[in-house]
Amino acid sequence: MKQGAPLPRRDEESDMSFKPTDYLPYDFANRRHIGPSPSEMSQMLDTVGAESLDALIDDTMPKAIRAKEPLDFGKAMSEREVLEHMRTIAGKNKVLTSLIGQGYHGTVTPPAIQRNILENPAWYTAYTPYQPEISQGRLEALLNFQTMVSDLTGLEIANASLLDEATACAEAMTMALRGSKSKAKAFFVDRDCHPQNIAVMKTRAEPLGIDMIVGDPDKMEADKVFGAIFQYPGTYGHVRDFTDHMTALHEAKAIGIVTADPLALTLLKEPGAMGADIAVGSTQRFGVPEGYGGPHAAYMACRDAMKRTMPGRIVGVSIDTHGNRAYRLSLQTREQHIRREKATSNVCTAQALLAVMASMYAVFHGPEGLKAIAQRIHRKTVRLAKGLEAAGFKVDPKAYFDTITVDVGPLQAAVMKSAVDEGINLRRVGETRVGISLDERTRPDTIEAVWRAFGIRQADDNFNPEYRLPDAMVRTSDYMTHPIFHMNRAETEMMRYMRRLADRDLALDRAMIPLGSCTMKLNSAAEMMPVTWREFSLIHPFVPADQALGYQEMIDDLSDKLCDITGYDAISMQPNSGAQGEYAGLLTIAAYHREQGQGHRNICLIPMSAHGTNPASAQMVGWKVVVIKTASNGDIDLDDFRAKAEQHSENLAGCMITYPSTHGVFEETVHEVTQITHDHGGQVYIDGANMNAMVGLSRPGDLGGDVSHLNLHKTFCIPHGGGGPGMGPIGVKSHLIPHLPGHPNEEGNAVSAAPYGSPSLLPISWSYCLMMGGDGLTQATRVAILNANYIAKRLEGAYDVLYKGPTGRVAHECIIDVRPYEETAGVTNEDVAKRLVDCGFHAPTMSWPVAGTLMVEPTESETKAELDRFCDAMLAIREEIREIEEGRMDRANNPLKNAPHTVEDLVVEWGDRPYSREQGCFPPGAFRVDKYWPPVNRVDNVHGDRNLICTCPPLEDYAEAAE
Amino acid sequence: MKQGAPLPRRDEESDMSFKPTDYLPYDFANRRHIGPSPSEMSQMLDTVGAESLDALIDDTMPKAIRAKEPLDFGKAMSEREVLEHMRTIAGKNKVLTSLIGQGYHGTVTPPAIQRNILENPAWYTAYTPYQPEISQGRLEALLNFQTMVSDLTGLEIANASLLDEATACAEAMTMALRGSKSKAKAFFVDRDCHPQNIAVMKTRAEPLGIDMIVGDPDKMEADKVFGAIFQYPGTYGHVRDFTDHMTALHEAKAIGIVTADPLALTLLKEPGAMGADIAVGSTQRFGVPEGYGGPHAAYMACRDAMKRTMPGRIVGVSIDTHGNRAYRLSLQTREQHIRREKATSNVCTAQALLAVMASMYAVFHGPEGLKAIAQRIHRKTVRLAKGLEAAGFKVDPKAYFDTITVDVGPLQAAVMKSAVDEGINLRRVGETRVGISLDERTRPDTIEAVWRAFGIRQADDNFNPEYRLPDAMVRTSDYMTHPIFHMNRAETEMMRYMRRLADRDLALDRAMIPLGSCTMKLNSAAEMMPVTWREFSLIHPFVPADQALGYQEMIDDLSDKLCDITGYDAISMQPNSGAQGEYAGLLTIAAYHREQGQGHRNICLIPMSAHGTNPASAQMVGWKVVVIKTASNGDIDLDDFRAKAEQHSENLAGCMITYPSTHGVFEETVHEVTQITHDHGGQVYIDGANMNAMVGLSRPGDLGGDVSHLNLHKTFCIPHGGGGPGMGPIGVKSHLIPHLPGHPNEEGNAVSAAPYGSPSLLPISWSYCLMMGGDGLTQATRVAILNANYIAKRLEGAYDVLYKGPTGRVAHECIIDVRPYEETAGVTNEDVAKRLVDCGFHAPTMSWPVAGTLMVEPTESETKAELDRFCDAMLAIREEIREIEEGRMDRANNPLKNAPHTVEDLVVEWGDRPYSREQGCFPPGAFRVDKYWPPVNRVDNVHGDRNLICTCPPLEDYAEAAE
Repeated sequence: MKQGAPLPRRDEESDMSFKPTDYLPYDFANRRHIGPSPSEMSQMLDTVGAESLDALIDDTMPKAIRAKEPLDFGKAMSEREVLEHMRTIAGKNKVLTSLIGQGYHGTVTPPAIQRNILENPAWYTAYTPYQPEISQGRLEALLNFQTMVSDLTGLEIANASLLDEATACAEAMTMALRGSKSKAKAFFVDRDCHPQNIAVMKTRAEPLGIDMIVGDPDKMEADKVFGAIFQYPGTYGHVRDFTDHMTALHEAKAIGIVTADPLALTLLKEPGAMGADIAVGSTQRFGVPEGYGGPHAAYMACRDAMKRTMPGRIVGVSIDTHGNRAYRLSLQTREQHIRREKATSNVCTAQALLAVMASMYAVFHGPEGLKAIAQRIHRKTVRLAKGLEAAGFKVDPKAYFDTITVDVGPLQAAVMKSAVDEGINLRRVGETRVGISLDERTRPDTIEAVWRAFGIRQADDNFNPEYRLPDAMVRTSDYMTHPIFHMNRAETEMMRYMRRLADRDLALDRAMIPLGSCTMKLNSAAEMMPVTWREFSLIHPFVPADQALGYQEMIDDLSDKLCDITGYDAISMQPNSGAQGEYAGLLTIAAYHREQGQGHRNICLIPMSAHGTNPASAQMVGWKVVVIKTASNGDIDLDDFRAKAEQHSENLAGCMITYPSTHGVFEETVHEVTQITHDHGGQVYIDGANMNAMVGLSRPGDLGGDVSHLNLHKTFCIPHGGGGPGMGPIGVKSHLIPHLPGHPNEEGNAVSAAPYGSPSLLPISWSYCLMMGGDGLTQATRVAILNANYIAKRLEGAYDVLYKGPTGRVAHECIIDVRPYEETAGVTNEDVAKRLVDCGFHAPTMSWPVAGTLMVEPTESETKAELDRFCDAMLAIREEIREIEEGRMDRANNPLKNAPHTVEDLVVEWGDRPYSREQGCFPPGAFRVDKYWPPVNRVDNVHGDRNLICTCPPLEDYAEAAE
Repeated sequence: MKQGAPLPRRDEESDMSFKPTDYLPYDFANRRHIGPSPSEMSQMLDTVGAESLDALIDDTMPKAIRAKEPLDFGKAMSEREVLEHMRTIAGKNKVLTSLIGQGYHGTVTPPAIQRNILENPAWYTAYTPYQPEISQGRLEALLNFQTMVSDLTGLEIANASLLDEATACAEAMTMALRGSKSKAKAFFVDRDCHPQNIAVMKTRAEPLGIDMIVGDPDKMEADKVFGAIFQYPGTYGHVRDFTDHMTALHEAKAIGIVTADPLALTLLKEPGAMGADIAVGSTQRFGVPEGYGGPHAAYMACRDAMKRTMPGRIVGVSIDTHGNRAYRLSLQTREQHIRREKATSNVCTAQALLAVMASMYAVFHGPEGLKAIAQRIHRKTVRLAKGLEAAGFKVDPKAYFDTITVDVGPLQAAVMKSAVDEGINLRRVGETRVGISLDERTRPDTIEAVWRAFGIRQADDNFNPEYRLPDAMVRTSDYMTHPIFHMNRAETEMMRYMRRLADRDLALDRAMIPLGSCTMKLNSAAEMMPVTWREFSLIHPFVPADQALGYQEMIDDLSDKLCDITGYDAISMQPNSGAQGEYAGLLTIAAYHREQGQGHRNICLIPMSAHGTNPASAQMVGWKVVVIKTASNGDIDLDDFRAKAEQHSENLAGCMITYPSTHGVFEETVHEVTQITHDHGGQVYIDGANMNAMVGLSRPGDLGGDVSHLNLHKTFCIPHGGGGPGMGPIGVKSHLIPHLPGHPNEEGNAVSAAPYGSPSLLPISWSYCLMMGGDGLTQATRVAILNANYIAKRLEGAYDVLYKGPTGRVAHECIIDVRPYEETAGVTNEDVAKRLVDCGFHAPTMSWPVAGTLMVEPTESETKAELDRFCDAMLAIREEIREIEEGRMDRANNPLKNAPHTVEDLVVEWGDRPYSREQGCFPPGAFRVDKYWPPVNRVDNVHGDRNLICTCPPLEDYAEAAE
């Protein structure tokens, strides 16, 4: 470094021409996103016995499946560049005041909720609460959500959210089909349902052979349907009492469903009081911004008798081994991942993070607060309507909550345009009307601006607004009486409540979550930042296209990139989860077959090892599932596949395979499988759940796939949010493009309420792609594979790793066999999983794809140190098992059986354990000072299902827990 | 609620006309900010025996001191309204690229640091780490900061930050005065120091009688000075070696100081290697945005021999009772709060949050990263300069790091203007030159834009940039070799590191921090949000006025409001802390006396009970402190006051009093005290530390105050940040306005480097005022008084509460006397404080203002439940003391002496304690599931000071702790 000596180059922030040993400034995302440092990678390659990362990949991935070209996205961007770019894109969206309604409303997200939940990694990086011991915080928040829903709807049981209101309507319809004792095949749909609800139900009804009748509720013939659904208030604002309809339906043994706005229910007679069997709806307006369509949490509630047929997750109350109260997911036996071919819903991902936000909004406001908000909105709507009426406009309906329509004859376009000039979006209704829905954000000057759009300069404003709700429709019952909704609402208390709940849980911000098939990778702060920018969050899904140009540019570019990555020709962003992606993909195939005059094709080949959602999705499009055997090496049994394909050749709709397989291996035979399918006229669905092992190295479109979904919440960094949101866009080959999901306001295969699903999440995935670049994404894949192989190697000898490839390598995950220890030591995979909690880890995936085993996927984001901590823990657990095997430790009273250990154990319950507190609580891997203490001991599943309580427990329990 | 029935009014978001029993929607800040609900307040009023809140206030506050008029700020705003308003204001600031330099540089804040530190209440709501057991996380981060500073400067000891670089220069000057053995009275200042550094040193030098010589370092006469300071690199870019100057100074027994850019030190010979005794500087460019001037963390480092005279806080390494490593603040005996009249610095507040950010930035980048950033900047500067030189411009200097100046003759204004048109701010230097400083944010197109501003269309860009650093100046020593700066730098690991540190600490997001005189109230999320908006954070302090119109509007309006609140006529926002406010206020008084021909007045009357900073500040303006006795009721001894005022009448400069008194009582005699002072020609300084007991009810300006400071970080919601930032603006009566601190680039009394101190914090205080409105602020004061009286009442009988007013009431805080138990049970206030940690509380203020006692200030933001939890804990502790008193518990081995209890105690060290684990760890008040566990036992202070280690401990210790 002499004067005159040349300065080192690489002065551009996003110069990517680096060697592993070079230093890279922090904002190269691919160094910050990828866990192991270059020197750690060298050590790890030594351990796995590979000369280089390239050599490892060559060893692991069959040549035949490798992509021909490297991914080229141009120059990768630094964090700062991408944030500046996102700001430019955001600036292309125009934030107007949308009074469009139709299921999406302005709402005010309390800043304390935004900061402490939505922007807090302790909440957004958490996984689905399948492991209750490390999930008590979010389980409590979700239980609050269920209690709120149950109270507002007046129905006994609520679930912990569904993807969106339209999906919830469709789920309610199929639930009615299952639950009804009527023999009718028709389903009645209130014509006043939101168009997107009707569209999605129609998509769902068709393959199931349901005859959907859309009409006037008063003309419904109850004896001809197995169920009916009514929108409340109606999409055009009508507030109707459906009590008589419910009576008629029940007389015909049919099921009555109401899809209701939960805010309206604070003032209006609840569905339960009308006799409804099921209620669904959206909690979007409980503090979750519109986000151009999502994500938001839909809800579903039902009568107690129907609970076992309800889709989605249900949080319930149980006890732990000390008899203390503990929350858990109840009735999991209903779930698709267990029921597989018998499943009738493929619902898997929920909207946990958004449900948590909505529940916190309810806790923040309490029933008085929600009611006051509803009253304010109603009062403003009455004022608006009176002003319009005074000016001679014809306003409908007479009884309404927050929505009215105005007949403007031929002036519809003019009024809409005039409103836009005032900064307001109205709704086009029919040919001559405009719709107006007011909301929590409506200000007095908003109303005046609407008046001006109607040419009213000065409305007579000297009236006293009166209720426009029919007397008989006024709610008389209490709701949200539980103390949680009456806690002190000072921000200090609220902030501490959110922190306490967060601290009870173990999320990615504290430790690796080594869940196989779940790809719990880094969700970086830079990626998360744009999500809460108003230019992305305050956009209604049905705004005019010129107000969402930023969104459009992002969607187009991300679609292009995903096409490059997958080898497909087009992407639909509509599906809100992986399972919904599967469903959408199969619908696309089915439509294609129909178009080809092959509508009879209805056989779907699915390997034994498939994700549980695969058969459930196939059922949903009316297909029959034919299960393909697994060969002893874990691959698809090719002979069986060929035989079944031949056997069903005439009717073969397609196959669903996962690549790399759910066993975590790159099967060499994938080309043959896809070829056989095509040869027999079928289409190939490749499940994209394991795309994290492929990006940049292999493309499903090149392997013979016709359609795949991508889990953006796995591979593309959307955080798991404690069980959602997710996004499952699908990529298709060109021949399927015409059959992709259409706009939910129009005809054709819509699977979600909003045209692009949950687009406010897309800045995350897009930023990830932009910051990583093609090279970075490919490097991530390579390191994900290295990390998995490193774990497999380190555990070698102690545990059997099932299903390695022919060269002894695994792909991006590995299955650890703990089955032998049940016999030798009485130790199950559950014992190992719970013991890992003592070590400060979320458990791996349990019993899937092989019962009794543990599947581990470390992802590229985990560092060598964290992998070592995990391996140290696993090896120590093996030693603990050995102690039992060798009779040095009791089979019933040992650290594994008693895991996880809590502070309560230390303080009051240690008793006569044949091991020390030290040994119990600080196994290898556990942090000492920074140890995570689970708030409860092992949770009793059987007790919980036998004594089902799915709303907040009574006051005395609550007080005790608070203490 | 019948149809046609009138709807309840109050449909405006910010309708404030409420009664306590009404429900208020959440975004009425004054309900969310204030802890107790209306019903809780009723219960509390019952307990304290007051009929109403008004009655309590009437009972507590003497009529004579009450404000004549209620505060009227117009209508209060909702959270949403205020955020929208802030957005409008932010839009009035113009974000250009500032290449002004002069100590402030563009920098990139890593998003992970922004989200997980700056926007995370676990970090920003923490208090100064005086209680080490609950502060290990931030102590570690600050120790990292010290290690970084010590390494970069090449000096042995560094402190944990100072207010800003200019203040640090002034502190270094006075430290040299104390440390030098030279008898000279002059101090040499390099004319290449930043103008604001010179200005602030000049302000400081004058009252201390220091003759400040500003000149060319090569013409310095070392034997005529006690010390000298040099800027490195110089403000105009020069890179000079000061080794010879240091030698000359040392020969003259004088002290050499270098004020150095820490980023430049990654490439350049370090001050320690030149022989400097002290180094100071700013760490702003380590990831802390300019923020129109602040806050940022300055640093100071010195030779080991000088450590005991170094101002500011120093984190050191000690051990806990089990011998485990534990961090703490070292050498506290140096501090002003202990030394009082002997203090030579009043430094109290540091910039902890910003030092934490800078230290995390260093951990993120490590030494290679910092060096790479510096090299990139240097490379770009060379490119810029070569382009300018090629075009024929005269560029100075020849050797530089990131800053050059260009002689443009009469075209100075034209070039500056042309640059602004290109979106770039340059620096005006003299009459004919412009200065350009590049930084981490500089992009290739920035350089091209600068060229265009100089009329260069196309620079010859085909050169290979070479180092322009003199060979002899190139750094040869290692730095930041500690493992913490070489940890894995993946974001996953960084995020977890920040979380682990945060979890070790107890901040407001988990529990009340009942610190007397510190006003630990809610820092709401809505108030915090605008702070990180780019329109506030990316503004250089010396931009043209028309680029900071939003700031100006905010400063003007907030000043108006603070004048209304205090009864003063003008506000200066410049002081960066309360102590600096005192100093600025006294300077203002001194200047006024000089103007009046009364420059000889130099006696300051200060009551015994004053804040320790008061006498220290008086010393700093060259005054003599005369201490006034305290009467037995805790009031100022009026007779003594009168006698001393008379005795010093000729020379009376003024008095410094605190109102309400530091004993937490509204003294009735305040008018007499101020009158006496005025009668003898003195001016009255009223310390605003306790303004939280006055806002809306009483105004210091009405009580006879001539000047007061306001702690915006106490009363006005700026969070404490774990020991800073703070702001201490001063209000003055009109006659003092001409003497307020001037612009630091110009003449006159500047006390901070930036004209408005730390303006990027002002959105917090302003939002608070706007959301609360006058009524809300007044209600906050009333509830603060209620909360304090509630605690005093609940503890009555168990403890003595010292210093109540004549009606038996306390103001906003109360002093709990635990002194008797030292004799009866061997229990000290420290034992009680540490036992409170077991109960999940930060300790109250210890031994101040009365040695051996505890002072509690709950603030208005704490709920009744939290106050009760605290009182329950205190009452239970009293019972534990009684057990000892009555011989039922050992005097040496008991829950108080062994407090705080850790998990280690439970697991390995319980031993033969005569009480159960349950009793030790779960005293009343402690949460059960959500218990806070301190990471260390009681920390050994003596060991720490005897074995001073102020940088990160060696690897083996570190590895052990990490495990």
